[in-house]
Amino acid sequence: MSEIRQDITTNEWVIIATERAKRPHDFTKPLKPLPPEFEPKCPFCPGNEAQTPPEVLGYREGGTSNSPGWWIRVIPNRFAALQPSQVECEGEVKREVANGLFRKMDGIGRHEVLIETPKHNLYFPYFTDKQAEEVVIALRERYLALRNEPNVKVVIIFKNHGDQAGTSLLHPHCQIVATPIVPQSLRRRTAVATRYYDDNGGCLYCDLIQAEQKAGVRVVEDGAKFFVMHPYASRSPFETWVLPKFHSASFGNLDLDAAKDLGRVLKRITGKIFTMLGNPDYNIVIHTAPVKEEDEDYFHWHLRIIPRLTMMAGFEIGSGIFINTALPEQTAPALREVKFQ
Amino acid sequence: MSEIRQDITTNEWVIIATERAKRPHDFTKPLKPLPPEFEPKCPFCPGNEAQTPPEVLGYREGGTSNSPGWWIRVIPNRFAALQPSQVECEGEVKREVANGLFRKMDGIGRHEVLIETPKHNLYFPYFTDKQAEEVVIALRERYLALRNEPNVKVVIIFKNHGDQAGTSLLHPHCQIVATPIVPQSLRRRTAVATRYYDDNGGCLYCDLIQAEQKAGVRVVEDGAKFFVMHPYASRSPFETWVLPKFHSASFGNLDLDAAKDLGRVLKRITGKIFTMLGNPDYNIVIHTAPVKEEDEDYFHWHLRIIPRLTMMAGFEIGSGIFINTALPEQTAPALREVKFQ
Repeated sequence: MSEIRQDITTNEWVIIATERAKRPHDFTKPLKPLPPEFEPKCPFCPGNEAQTPPEVLGYREGGTSNSPGWWIRVIPNRFAALQPSQVECEGEVKREVANGLFRKMDGIGRHEVLIETPKHNLYFPYFTDKQAEEVVIALRERYLALRNEPNVKVVIIFKNHGDQAGTSLLHPHCQIVATPIVPQSLRRRTAVATRYYDDNGGCLYCDLIQAEQKAGVRVVEDGAKFFVMHPYASRSPFETWVLPKFHSASFGNLDLDAAKDLGRVLKRITGKIFTMLGNPDYNIVIHTAPVKEEDEDYFHWHLRIIPRLTMMAGFEIGSGIFINTALPEQTAPALREVKFQ
Repeated sequence: MSEIRQDITTNEWVIIATERAKRPHDFTKPLKPLPPEFEPKCPFCPGNEAQTPPEVLGYREGGTSNSPGWWIRVIPNRFAALQPSQVECEGEVKREVANGLFRKMDGIGRHEVLIETPKHNLYFPYFTDKQAEEVVIALRERYLALRNEPNVKVVIIFKNHGDQAGTSLLHPHCQIVATPIVPQSLRRRTAVATRYYDDNGGCLYCDLIQAEQKAGVRVVEDGAKFFVMHPYASRSPFETWVLPKFHSASFGNLDLDAAKDLGRVLKRITGKIFTMLGNPDYNIVIHTAPVKEEDEDYFHWHLRIIPRLTMMAGFEIGSGIFINTALPEQTAPALREVKFQ
């Protein structure tokens, strides 16, 4: 008999196939061979800076803008999903609702790429601590810049690693999209958390961390500033959540010490995932409050790492209910025990 | 400049990359070679009936249950996500909410597979009209049987075709899952439609069909009983909706004539998709009202065909906002004009 579990942060359901669940070590794979350190055709490799739009941020030892010498570089995405308005605009982006059934607005916003390292094949787990820290510091810097742009409602930070995660660009990079609308899924998460606050007088996620600490069985790492777990209603095997242990609605409120700590946590956790699952395709997404709600008491920003080990099929698309063939109570201890470094 | 469009049925946003949109014919591919007509190791091929659980329905010319002679066969899924209760149960499935943050219930329900044809390589477009009609009639028959099972709240019908759509089983089949809970995504769709009804005094989907007929630019087929279109806020290229032109909340209310018509529509539309996109991996999902709300005035059941031409990446996972690189105003006319048969 399988179990149907409810994600308390969204009210979404997940079917956990407990009976035919795979063991954590069924997912084990040897590490895929790495690409070369330099790839002449890669627009993100040093020396090819002219192939990208001019940089908006460079952490560099020497050289000038848009030349080698950087160790982290942020550029507008050449294939931007959203772009800055061409006209100076003080008001809100206008929505066209003339025909009520066909609502649209201009794709105003920002879409940036953060190149995490000059080395084509240096994935997150292999960074020095300092490099890992500075990637998070640079993300924070861009968050704080973009949140102040006109019309920006939410800044969404994510990473696609590998074909199955939606990218064929191997060079390590993250993306940052600033949108002029609040995604419905964030509205729902905020509504669920607000309702919980009204019912219980506290933050849902803070209480969830406490409950998971007490349960103990889904904890990957319980650090000084961050709590890492496999959620009770995991939608896919090895889905990993990283939550700040202090209440905070927005990634933008992260102080520099915590940002550095997060960099080291990410290096360690992705390192364990690489070691166990063999450099799998994966996504990272940061869930954070809308920019005008950064200080509220209800939502609690967090980061999710989602190894893409399974495909989304018709049942998931049709119902939103995921079927997970791994038990978080088994995958979390397995990942916790992986030796990395 | 891209466009941000809102799906009026969910309030979800989609970014349509109008500027760098691909043309419909950029997606054109030659037909992949077909597998053999009979595959000795396939559990769905005739002669291998003993490899599956005993059938719950067989349309057959001869033979006895669980032997060859059938042209459509329905069996419980050997790897069922949900299963019938072992004990006779008159009440509701009990939810365990002892610890409010960890809610679960038993995975009670049904999970069936409908084998569409004895032939391993006979895909939907190559069916006779009669075979296509009878697949829909058999789906309807199983819907009507499962809706009456205890604890069943929703009957979800879907199809996975190909690796990228979540199946490696090539033999043509659909799946039917009866759940003891109402998916949140269906709750939201129903809520949006109910709100629209209260505001406007009519069904959102009926009005949408009229608006799309008037606009004309996203229509693939406007038949006697069904309307086929590429929605204004398409989440992926060639996403195709098939809606009954008469108001009906539930697939279960389909009469036999309409069921037959739907079979022929599906044959024709999947045929056009195969011809243009070269037997792509795809999903079909049927969105239908909960079984106790089959006669309501707000929701309007429909079917979606989703060719899996793109990957879901971190932005989509993190925000629920899809980026679509094709324009429904271009793909719909392209598909409409494809010659099939």
